[in-house]
Amino acid sequence: MNIAILGGTGKEGAGLATRWAIAGHSIIIGSRDAKRAHDKAVELRDKAHKIPIVGHSNAEAAALGEVVVIALPAAGLAATLPEVRDACRGKVVVSTVVPLTFGGPRLFTPPPEGSAAEQVQALLPEARLVAAFHHIAAHELSSTEHAIECDLLMCGADASAKSVVAELGRSMGLRALDVGPLTNAGPVEGITAVLATVNRRYKLKNSGIKITGV
Amino acid sequence: MNIAILGGTGKEGAGLATRWAIAGHSIIIGSRDAKRAHDKAVELRDKAHKIPIVGHSNAEAAALGEVVVIALPAAGLAATLPEVRDACRGKVVVSTVVPLTFGGPRLFTPPPEGSAAEQVQALLPEARLVAAFHHIAAHELSSTEHAIECDLLMCGADASAKSVVAELGRSMGLRALDVGPLTNAGPVEGITAVLATVNRRYKLKNSGIKITGV
Repeated sequence: MNIAILGGTGKEGAGLATRWAIAGHSIIIGSRDAKRAHDKAVELRDKAHKIPIVGHSNAEAAALGEVVVIALPAAGLAATLPEVRDACRGKVVVSTVVPLTFGGPRLFTPPPEGSAAEQVQALLPEARLVAAFHHIAAHELSSTEHAIECDLLMCGADASAKSVVAELGRSMGLRALDVGPLTNAGPVEGITAVLATVNRRYKLKNSGIKITGV
Repeated sequence: MNIAILGGTGKEGAGLATRWAIAGHSIIIGSRDAKRAHDKAVELRDKAHKIPIVGHSNAEAAALGEVVVIALPAAGLAATLPEVRDACRGKVVVSTVVPLTFGGPRLFTPPPEGSAAEQVQALLPEARLVAAFHHIAAHELSSTEHAIECDLLMCGADASAKSVVAELGRSMGLRALDVGPLTNAGPVEGITAVLATVNRRYKLKNSGIKITGV
């Protein structure tokens, strides 16, 4: 499957690209700067043994992807997403965005919509949005030697879009759990604030979450 | 240790009472209605084999407890907490409160303070507040036959209060993790919305959460 990763030059996006490329998907890294996207694609191709990874501007990447993954910083959504709105129409779009503010009075700082994912949906109203992959540590994604000890929590309104995302999760060995509608995205994104705090307190890079009893 | 549980006639409070009584603590069930608290105490004493469990009004319970656990509905905080403010001064107070609204447009509905725990702290400004025990399913607490598959996530400003709460968690077999300041309570409480949704979608009563990598 062709997967575009907007903001794919960041750690989380590049980690997802690597894991998916190894699983056999074709990756289009998107960036504001097409040159940076291209350079990152070359770097990841070397790492993932020449599996197809290319780099383009965010707009071109969104047009090329069958699935579009939004791995942008929360602060960049309003500036970047309008230019990919048409390209995302009717497509499965995955928001991995986490609205965290380091060094402020509060770590988890969702926008007025309630969550970054709901802001993405407002900016891409015709996208089939799924919020997912927030908790899979970039550190875990980049090291491909071992299994990732983390569940994939997904929320969104479109059941068939969630099935596509669940399959993308399983392709990197994750168990996917449906955690309801997009109005649950705030709590799902907020878990990342808990994990970031655990990483800091316990001097880790790769804490994750497992739902028990399922 | 004497543990007062305000709202201890509810499922979550009664479950905590049972587990702690079996672990050797003395429990004071608090309720708006002292008669209901007394009746619940008698019921739990039978279940926990005559271990000390008594019932009182919320105000009397708060006065008797060395540790005060707030297991009230989120909607009842503003009405109930002012009457226990003096009794909670300087004490370790545990907020297990989760601001969920079933049947509305959004399941997780924190107050303007950002979390139920921050609202509790505003109403009990001299309490040594720790937000904890939100994720331990009442169903798991009430069945004492097996170990609880869930981590205890704690947040708050007072490290020694967190140590007391960690010990209370260990006394029922839980691993306790420090997840930072009280401004992280919103994300911690929000996890309960995720678990409530998982329970509903997967027809469970006892989903829980484990942090991996620690």
